[in-house]
Amino acid sequence: MHPLVERLFANDPLALSRLMTLVENRADDVFEIMTQVQEHCGHAKTVGITGPPGAGKSTLADKLIGHLRKAQRRVGVVAIDPSSPFSGGAVMGDRIRMQDHAGDDQVFIRSLGTRGSLGGISRATREMVKLYDAAGVDEVIVETVGVGQTEFHIMGIAETTVVVLTPESGDTIQTMKAGILEIADIFVVNKADREGADRMAHELKAMLEIAQKGDWTIPVLLTQARDDLGVSELHAAIESHRDYLQGEGRAEERRRQVLIQETQEIILEELSKKVRALSHFQTGESRISNPYETALAVLEKVSL
Amino acid sequence: MHPLVERLFANDPLALSRLMTLVENRADDVFEIMTQVQEHCGHAKTVGITGPPGAGKSTLADKLIGHLRKAQRRVGVVAIDPSSPFSGGAVMGDRIRMQDHAGDDQVFIRSLGTRGSLGGISRATREMVKLYDAAGVDEVIVETVGVGQTEFHIMGIAETTVVVLTPESGDTIQTMKAGILEIADIFVVNKADREGADRMAHELKAMLEIAQKGDWTIPVLLTQARDDLGVSELHAAIESHRDYLQGEGRAEERRRQVLIQETQEIILEELSKKVRALSHFQTGESRISNPYETALAVLEKVSL
Repeated sequence: MHPLVERLFANDPLALSRLMTLVENRADDVFEIMTQVQEHCGHAKTVGITGPPGAGKSTLADKLIGHLRKAQRRVGVVAIDPSSPFSGGAVMGDRIRMQDHAGDDQVFIRSLGTRGSLGGISRATREMVKLYDAAGVDEVIVETVGVGQTEFHIMGIAETTVVVLTPESGDTIQTMKAGILEIADIFVVNKADREGADRMAHELKAMLEIAQKGDWTIPVLLTQARDDLGVSELHAAIESHRDYLQGEGRAEERRRQVLIQETQEIILEELSKKVRALSHFQTGESRISNPYETALAVLEKVSL
Repeated sequence: MHPLVERLFANDPLALSRLMTLVENRADDVFEIMTQVQEHCGHAKTVGITGPPGAGKSTLADKLIGHLRKAQRRVGVVAIDPSSPFSGGAVMGDRIRMQDHAGDDQVFIRSLGTRGSLGGISRATREMVKLYDAAGVDEVIVETVGVGQTEFHIMGIAETTVVVLTPESGDTIQTMKAGILEIADIFVVNKADREGADRMAHELKAMLEIAQKGDWTIPVLLTQARDDLGVSELHAAIESHRDYLQGEGRAEERRRQVLIQETQEIILEELSKKVRALSHFQTGESRISNPYETALAVLEKVSL
């Protein structure tokens, strides 16, 4: 067994941290590590928190952690940071924003820069969740900024997705419309003391009426995360959604789908490494004139 | 030759439109079509326009088209629309926003929904640009909403990337920082009659001073797109950037990089189709318990 995995199973928090770094850097031994970690997964519950910048996601996550801790749950956070694909610097400073739990050794917070391909981020996020899971974390919160492509992928990772908006998010809703409705299991209108909060909640509910998501009625909650108002209701709504997922074999079907998606992601990431090496080699000396012809020549040699 | 390609080369605008649809739908004959189209590409110039929702990108594009038309250029637009990955509905209504040129048969506007994977969108966008190119379009504008992952990919497609902000975009800049600087060849502060426009331009210039991009000095332009103010300056800045790219063999190196990237994208999209079919087959009857082990079993059979 990989020595860090052995230490992870022995509850060494430093090993968890080092493994997270290996996963973030897509190190060569990630495949081996995760094959071993996988066997110890399946316990943790996952919540995705997403929404536009400035909606108060980190504050909400922070307060939610407080409620989870009161329920004696060990909590892990993966905060997906927007950053340059080139410089790779994470800019959010989540560790600072989630200060409430800085001294709690049952709360783990980890940022993941969004450099690299979407598939890579998706796989790295999944793997960080698995590392938490194998380390005995009960609840993993995946926080992601923005309402765009990246967030849709959280769906396959988080069992329950919370979309956080503010009374000022009218434009966001306008732009996303169907998309935002389809990713949300729970809506939160945060900063609910601001003008327009009730109207926003009302509009969301009106939209939801025409876009019912199976048997689950998507709740629209008002919160003031900074003052911990409405957060216990959010916690309760997350629990309700989980109960819903458990019902009528939905959890089993979902697990099957996730495993297929994961397997495909892993295969594609490994193939993509090979392709990058191969194309580079092919174009080192000679020039590509028609990328379709070059691609075809490569593809004809692949048996899959 | 594919009959639609034949008609495309004979300047049939209906064939162009039908080919765009095939590309958007990732039809089976796209590979064959594009192999043939590729031979007639290399003429069109490309500009990417990106920025947060509400920045006025479509209006700016609309006015820019006016200036390009005055210069007798044939123009094509690919507007990448945010939409649900599920329902797939495009929501922007660009055709409506770019009304100025509705009756001009030398202006083509096409929306592309962002359903599907990022790689798929990237390849479809590239291919739409190529279709315009092969159809004799001189200038292709690629418009994309938001400042996130998707936009970075535009870099490989557009020779010149214009980032459009408004005096209210402070949060966007805060969130993106390095990323926004690294994708922009030209900054536009639109709606410059609003308060804070000069301060925004000043802040951008200050940021740019510490993040110089090679020999190119990224200009920060003030526009009021609705009234066509500052748009001829934008047109001139785009031309300057092209002159810069032509200098000192940069264009050649860029073309080489783009061809490599394109070839990789094509190979990966084709492989990804195969993987999806294969994994599905493998998990039809028996269950995956460890996705890494299942993936490894598949990968061991691939020679690449």
